[in-house]
Amino acid sequence: GRGGEKKGKSGVPERGRDSQPLTRSIFPLSPVSPAAERIRFILGEEDDGPAPPQLFTELDELLSVDGQEMEWKETARWIKFEEKVEKGGERWSKPHVATLSLHSLMELRTCIEKGTVMLDMEASTLSQVVEMITDNQVANNMLKAELKEKVTYTLLRKHRHQTKKSNLRSLADIGKTVSSASRLFSNQENGSPTPTHRNLTSNSMNDISDKPEKDQLRNKFMKKLPRDAEASNVLVGEVDFLDAPFVAFVRLQQAVMLGALTEVPVPTRFLFILLGPKGKAKAYHEIGRAIATLMSDEVFHDIAYKAKDRGDLLAGIDEFLDEVIVLPPGEWDPAIRIEPPKSIPSSGKRKNMFSGGDNSQMNGDMPHDGGGGGGHEVGDELKKTGKFCGGLILDIKRKMPFFVSDFTDAFHIQALSAILFIYLGTVTNAITFGGLLGDATDNMQGVLESFLGTAIAGGLFCLLGGQPLTILSSTGPVLVFERLLFNFSKDNAFDYLEFRLWIGLWSAFFCLVLVATDASFLVQYFTRFTEEGFSCLISFIFIYDAFKKMLKLAHHYPINSDFRVDYVTQYDCLCMAPAILGKTLPMNATWSSLSEKDCLKYGGELVGKACGFVPDITVMSFILFFGTYSTSMCLKKFKTSPYFPTTMRKLISDFAIILAILIFVGVDMLVGLETPKLIVPTEFKPTSPKRAWFVPPFGGNPWWVYLASALPALLVTILLFMDQQITAVIVNRKEHKLKKGAGYHLDLFWVAVLMIVCSFMGLPWYVAATVISIAHIDSLKMETETSAPGEQPKFLGVREQRVTGLCVFLLTGLSVFMSPILKFIPMPVLYGVFLYMGVASLKGVQFMDRLKLLLMPAKHQPDLVYLRHVPLRKVHLFTFIQILCLALLWVLKSTVAAIVFPVMILALVAVRKAMDYMFSQHELSFLDDVIPEKDKKRKEDEKKKKKRGSMDSDVEDSDYPYNEKSPSIKIPMDMMEKEPFLGDKSFDKGEKSPAFLDRHTSC
Amino acid sequence: GRGGEKKGKSGVPERGRDSQPLTRSIFPLSPVSPAAERIRFILGEEDDGPAPPQLFTELDELLSVDGQEMEWKETARWIKFEEKVEKGGERWSKPHVATLSLHSLMELRTCIEKGTVMLDMEASTLSQVVEMITDNQVANNMLKAELKEKVTYTLLRKHRHQTKKSNLRSLADIGKTVSSASRLFSNQENGSPTPTHRNLTSNSMNDISDKPEKDQLRNKFMKKLPRDAEASNVLVGEVDFLDAPFVAFVRLQQAVMLGALTEVPVPTRFLFILLGPKGKAKAYHEIGRAIATLMSDEVFHDIAYKAKDRGDLLAGIDEFLDEVIVLPPGEWDPAIRIEPPKSIPSSGKRKNMFSGGDNSQMNGDMPHDGGGGGGHEVGDELKKTGKFCGGLILDIKRKMPFFVSDFTDAFHIQALSAILFIYLGTVTNAITFGGLLGDATDNMQGVLESFLGTAIAGGLFCLLGGQPLTILSSTGPVLVFERLLFNFSKDNAFDYLEFRLWIGLWSAFFCLVLVATDASFLVQYFTRFTEEGFSCLISFIFIYDAFKKMLKLAHHYPINSDFRVDYVTQYDCLCMAPAILGKTLPMNATWSSLSEKDCLKYGGELVGKACGFVPDITVMSFILFFGTYSTSMCLKKFKTSPYFPTTMRKLISDFAIILAILIFVGVDMLVGLETPKLIVPTEFKPTSPKRAWFVPPFGGNPWWVYLASALPALLVTILLFMDQQITAVIVNRKEHKLKKGAGYHLDLFWVAVLMIVCSFMGLPWYVAATVISIAHIDSLKMETETSAPGEQPKFLGVREQRVTGLCVFLLTGLSVFMSPILKFIPMPVLYGVFLYMGVASLKGVQFMDRLKLLLMPAKHQPDLVYLRHVPLRKVHLFTFIQILCLALLWVLKSTVAAIVFPVMILALVAVRKAMDYMFSQHELSFLDDVIPEKDKKRKEDEKKKKKRGSMDSDVEDSDYPYNEKSPSIKIPMDMMEKEPFLGDKSFDKGEKSPAFLDRHTSC
Repeated sequence: GRGGEKKGKSGVPERGRDSQPLTRSIFPLSPVSPAAERIRFILGEEDDGPAPPQLFTELDELLSVDGQEMEWKETARWIKFEEKVEKGGERWSKPHVATLSLHSLMELRTCIEKGTVMLDMEASTLSQVVEMITDNQVANNMLKAELKEKVTYTLLRKHRHQTKKSNLRSLADIGKTVSSASRLFSNQENGSPTPTHRNLTSNSMNDISDKPEKDQLRNKFMKKLPRDAEASNVLVGEVDFLDAPFVAFVRLQQAVMLGALTEVPVPTRFLFILLGPKGKAKAYHEIGRAIATLMSDEVFHDIAYKAKDRGDLLAGIDEFLDEVIVLPPGEWDPAIRIEPPKSIPSSGKRKNMFSGGDNSQMNGDMPHDGGGGGGHEVGDELKKTGKFCGGLILDIKRKMPFFVSDFTDAFHIQALSAILFIYLGTVTNAITFGGLLGDATDNMQGVLESFLGTAIAGGLFCLLGGQPLTILSSTGPVLVFERLLFNFSKDNAFDYLEFRLWIGLWSAFFCLVLVATDASFLVQYFTRFTEEGFSCLISFIFIYDAFKKMLKLAHHYPINSDFRVDYVTQYDCLCMAPAILGKTLPMNATWSSLSEKDCLKYGGELVGKACGFVPDITVMSFILFFGTYSTSMCLKKFKTSPYFPTTMRKLISDFAIILAILIFVGVDMLVGLETPKLIVPTEFKPTSPKRAWFVPPFGGNPWWVYLASALPALLVTILLFMDQQITAVIVNRKEHKLKKGAGYHLDLFWVAVLMIVCSFMGLPWYVAATVISIAHIDSLKMETETSAPGEQPKFLGVREQRVTGLCVFLLTGLSVFMSPILKFIPMPVLYGVFLYMGVASLKGVQFMDRLKLLLMPAKHQPDLVYLRHVPLRKVHLFTFIQILCLALLWVLKSTVAAIVFPVMILALVAVRKAMDYMFSQHELSFLDDVIPEKDKKRKEDEKKKKKRGSMDSDVEDSDYPYNEKSPSIKIPMDMMEKEPFLGDKSFDKGEKSPAFLDRHTSC
Repeated sequence: GRGGEKKGKSGVPERGRDSQPLTRSIFPLSPVSPAAERIRFILGEEDDGPAPPQLFTELDELLSVDGQEMEWKETARWIKFEEKVEKGGERWSKPHVATLSLHSLMELRTCIEKGTVMLDMEASTLSQVVEMITDNQVANNMLKAELKEKVTYTLLRKHRHQTKKSNLRSLADIGKTVSSASRLFSNQENGSPTPTHRNLTSNSMNDISDKPEKDQLRNKFMKKLPRDAEASNVLVGEVDFLDAPFVAFVRLQQAVMLGALTEVPVPTRFLFILLGPKGKAKAYHEIGRAIATLMSDEVFHDIAYKAKDRGDLLAGIDEFLDEVIVLPPGEWDPAIRIEPPKSIPSSGKRKNMFSGGDNSQMNGDMPHDGGGGGGHEVGDELKKTGKFCGGLILDIKRKMPFFVSDFTDAFHIQALSAILFIYLGTVTNAITFGGLLGDATDNMQGVLESFLGTAIAGGLFCLLGGQPLTILSSTGPVLVFERLLFNFSKDNAFDYLEFRLWIGLWSAFFCLVLVATDASFLVQYFTRFTEEGFSCLISFIFIYDAFKKMLKLAHHYPINSDFRVDYVTQYDCLCMAPAILGKTLPMNATWSSLSEKDCLKYGGELVGKACGFVPDITVMSFILFFGTYSTSMCLKKFKTSPYFPTTMRKLISDFAIILAILIFVGVDMLVGLETPKLIVPTEFKPTSPKRAWFVPPFGGNPWWVYLASALPALLVTILLFMDQQITAVIVNRKEHKLKKGAGYHLDLFWVAVLMIVCSFMGLPWYVAATVISIAHIDSLKMETETSAPGEQPKFLGVREQRVTGLCVFLLTGLSVFMSPILKFIPMPVLYGVFLYMGVASLKGVQFMDRLKLLLMPAKHQPDLVYLRHVPLRKVHLFTFIQILCLALLWVLKSTVAAIVFPVMILALVAVRKAMDYMFSQHELSFLDDVIPEKDKKRKEDEKKKKKRGSMDSDVEDSDYPYNEKSPSIKIPMDMMEKEPFLGDKSFDKGEKSPAFLDRHTSC
């Protein structure tokens, strides 16, 4: 993606314009603000120290109602976003973006400019702080000496925090205290007598306890703050004894706990105080919000910690003003609380701009979240080492360190839900394929072989494979191959199992050769186009199969549409004795007492209108089918609903499919109909009595067959390689944020080994199953618990471990003993789960998004990155080609030619290659790219933000229209330096296949 | 609501603070900006002229690629919101809020300050304009004379608009023209030879045709603009021959069509030109966006039209800057395109602030959209006139002028969908109630009477009633009353119909007395609490009934749960001859050939396991039931999906229920089961042969019964009055934005008249039906077609007319002849429609929102107005009381006491009254209010915005904490002036019931 973005259509890099700072005026004579240089200086120096701690900012306002005791009341707080106290609701508002007025920011600037600024003050109590501020102001003739006492008294009033439950009770408390505290400054405007000055001891002067109060300590909000967090307190209020504003900005030398000043027991580092004459409370409030917002701004926060003098703070405000985003008043209602955005711009960009780290950021293609993975690049996994087994050895080296954590990482309730969900999917699959295989091979491989094979292959793979999130299963092409093979053996009087064993051995050998020669590096040529084509096709097959099975079921239990309630007397089905009696009936039985099965067994004839119809079951099955599907869908979405606490919602969402299954098993039991149930084999022996658990390699077939097997084995090898590796690519997708790395070579190695084992035991062959693997990953996704209020939970990655897979296959093996439980599950419910899996695995696939675009008028289309950069008709053309390819593959899949299906997937790669002639590389970089939508947009945004003028809302303006038509193609040297991969690979190689480049730069 | 907001908890008005302009600095010595006064002057004078026309703003940028022909390219446009050209996508972006940088606004200010400003220029072609600008600049030594030619040439280059389909083709076009136009200013930096100056005739100088081009004329975008719209063209670009920016702002004396300058054929009024030296294209672009955004700002737009000099424009920019909303850079990503908000602040507030219209706005409680209704107040409709029939006469006077439009307004496809939908609901209702009535009255009133009565009563009411949107129907309480009455008559050997006639006559008389005495004014005491309690209860009954009917159906068609497929031979149901033969069988019939009905008829016995079970029908019915419901729901929501063009989506959404019915009728026909169908009577005669179409008033009962009937009639009167008027209140709700006014007295008059008619004809009594009436209104809602791109469609009101209702009841009457069509509709489908109606009528009910709140953790709760102002526990308490009341009513409804049900609704009013002691008036004004959520918030916001400092994002700060504790209660005179209703009603009356006040102030 980067390649496409950095170069314009004509390949000219856009770097030149990055050096064009917006903050410099276009007018040559305008004075250049010195703020930028100053901030560069402040932020640039001594960067070695620890990062400044997180700040909790609290805005307290003075309740200075005439004739009553004054008090400070918390009205808003900030960690990242603003939360305010809802006056009437006695609650915290939702966190929202603090919208400010330009005016209040300007006023704040004046406050800092004209007020007292005391940095690194040495004080340990609030009284000391106030003492030092007032002394300073008096000394500088900013405050009349006689007012010092009043200011001090005001600033030391009690602080009321929102933690206290009821305002009503609090008001009652005040009522009690008022009598003792008396009315020090009663309303002088009302002409009441001059205040009776009480004995102003430090005790009565100071309402604030030095130690944190119980309320503070019990405050659950502490959980949202890191341990080393510090507080900044903003105190604003109007008083009647001042003529001019009293302003102070204080930074303490050491953060100290100033008693009950702050809502949470966190030491205070900053204090901003604004007292002013009556009548401008609203303005003070806005200024308080402005400084609080600034303090929660990451850049100003750093400046505040590092500032040496007033000028540094002013420069910080100026920098903030430069970066500010302005909404026109006519287009936005300021009363709308803006919800925190999904992605917040990283402050790193703004900071780096000043600290000179610009260049390192320009290369910042690496995701920030790769911290856990030991810093390996994905490209590494698919690099051709050129050594014998080099890739395999690297894979083992990469995966070994994680082996222990692959077990310890599984301790989470989510793993349980994943096990149950995937287990049911696997078992259903094993039964379905087992049944089909038994049918195709005359029970040489049946349901029990399918169970045993699934358990052994899947379990071993999950225990030792390179990517234990992959789930192995029988797949369609293998089934087709077995059917052909069996028929061929029967026709030529070959021993099927022995023939198959040799094919398996040859295939395994070929696979091992592929492993040894690092052939998996070819996987790089599977672009999004190929991947999505393959996975969509598999998903469609899942959906199609679910419906096909339901229709088959309906066919098996036909509905009597002609039934008329009134003619119930005319419907029956009697067993009539055959004209020529064949078998004799058992004792005590008459023809009419026989069941349908027995009747047919003894050669009887079924006569009557009711014969051949089964009431209720089909209709009920459809209810169960659609019910399970839609309930799963709804429950899965429950996570984003506002009901119930987060943990509960997460639990419901994680167990959505299990819950849906349980609900509809319950419905089925309640209605009590004889719907078809899940029946697993109960005895452990080969399905066919003609075979044992070990296939002897010699003796069944002539010797040349052992060699000739190599030919069909080649086909099987291609089939396995494609099926396995495409699924592996999908599982290892960047968007899953896997941290333990992939192991393509190791995966293939184990597939080959399992091939040998299964061939010898006469079990089906196994390969990675796309849809179930995606379902597995989906059920193990992790998100952050939100930290600061309003911050969006981030997708962290997948619970990468070997336990879920292992358990799934252990359970599959044990299913033989679980039939008493499993027999309650109706098959239509499981078909509903299949439908769900098929549909769910289509989610987030760009091809599907583009299909939807076909139905949308342009103005309703979502703001997708590729729509900003690629003309719609090109997007549609791309989609049409993909549809065409899929339709062809579908047709192929439905005919006998299914066996060449995996080879045809290779054809997709060729089609993709041919598309280079129909689309520009720029377009393809947007349409055919493994970076998912979100990442892409984020990157694009980040790239732009690196520029000085991070304000441009129209990020993609950059390459337009200024050099679109530029005829010269230059590849400047700085670009070579910026993209390190160009050193590895020759440039012309990269030019031919930009997707190839993409994989390197973005994976 | 206003009352509660204007006064704080303690009743002190907050008005004082309104006079505190934020734009004045808190620092006494800071200079006061003269901008405000200047703008007041500009906007205040000669306000008589027509409002300035709408502006279309277009931003064109110079494609000044070295060595090629220059060209202007449209890159963005504005009507209200910004739409930009997606560089790669060759399309318009979605309209979005134009986020600007403060820096670009400051730069723009400098541009206007230092550049050429020419107001009221007299020119008719672009060449003239350019000539005059350049001459001016040369004269003022701002432009070197030798550069004039180059500037002119540049400004007269061709303009390329986004309307042209393909950029590729356009580029090809350029290729052709390049050769002739030649390279006038080839790249001097490259050291290429000096440009060969061509013969600069006016023809070759000017690339722009004087007449609009075809592309312009064909541009569909014109539809978005009013006829008198004018254009403002912003041209920015970088050129290599300038050393300093060339800036000009031009207002033409007369708006003239400057040829192909503008995308749409609209005359240009404003021109902003910025040409600057190379290297700052990005900055020029941002400045261009800034001036374009300003031109689309309603206030600056006015100033631009009225400005007398440069200073006025600068004052306009300063005003804009003062009002601007600032987002902190760390909390918002500037790359996010902000979608246009649902509600845009009205610029009227900002303008009025300056033009001195402040006071009139302060009273602006009246909704702006009342334009269509002739300016009557809702309070008017319920005013007690004190005259005989005063209310009725006023009602007639109010409704008369609309009588013709009541027919002409119906011409819309929506009406057709409404007719079909409501017809099906009405018919189903008529059949259900008819069946129940027939059952209760031994067929003295049956299905046919129900059809006839519905048709006559509904039709007449819709034709002549006060509120033709109300749908009349039989209701539950009436049914219960009839049942009791019939039993009483039977027990006492009264003539039921005659007795009922007299009760009807007395009731009608009482109702007429209520009409004559304007008793409907009592409706005012039905607050939201009563209304919602009533309508929720009715909705719940609808939902409950739908399920009850389905269960009854399941009971009627029992499923054989014990059926085992294999034992199909054992299931039959034979008709056995009775032990003692009673009736003889008809000819050619044997016992076994009889149908179930016949068998029972002839005294036969049904024997066998299959007897008593009906296969498939119940299960199928449930599929039809849930299918119809969920399909209706989905299709209704389809309007907000992004697929298909708007008209199509609207159509699908309007016809959602009809489509769902058709789909499931189709499904039912496809499966072909004998599901219960809608059977309407086909013959026109009284259900019971014992009665005629006219009930004689005398002769059946003793004379004293005629008088005694007055007693039960009283009960019926209360019942009718409550049922009718609460529904009328719900229908006439403010949120429906009805423009033709209500007619409570007229409604009741017709109900009384119909009572007489129905009593004489022996038909059921009819009264307004809540759920169907709401469904009727919902199906007739109108929305604006969006005007400016990005503006939200507004709910305009309801298609108020008499045609839909009339047609519905005409069709109901004709249903007798439509049974061949109607018989295809399965009953479960109609029950699904009932379920849909019940659920849909709960939507938007505040009580339901509050119920949901019970399940939500506080942090997930939506930002509802009342949650900002009322503590959560109070909200929950209110909800609990409401739940309790509803539960009691439900129990009552389910017992025989149902007859006193309407009286109990009155009890709700009492409960509401008692709540005055548990809740403060302030809280009740938020919780129990007829203003719906959105309106309320809007109003609140508007109120705040009237203040100078419209920037405060925390609107509800105003009454907190500055005077929360103020002990003094003063009712100042200015408040009395502001609320006109206080003149009518005595103040203490209003104080007791704030909801009563609300109705006056907010309805």
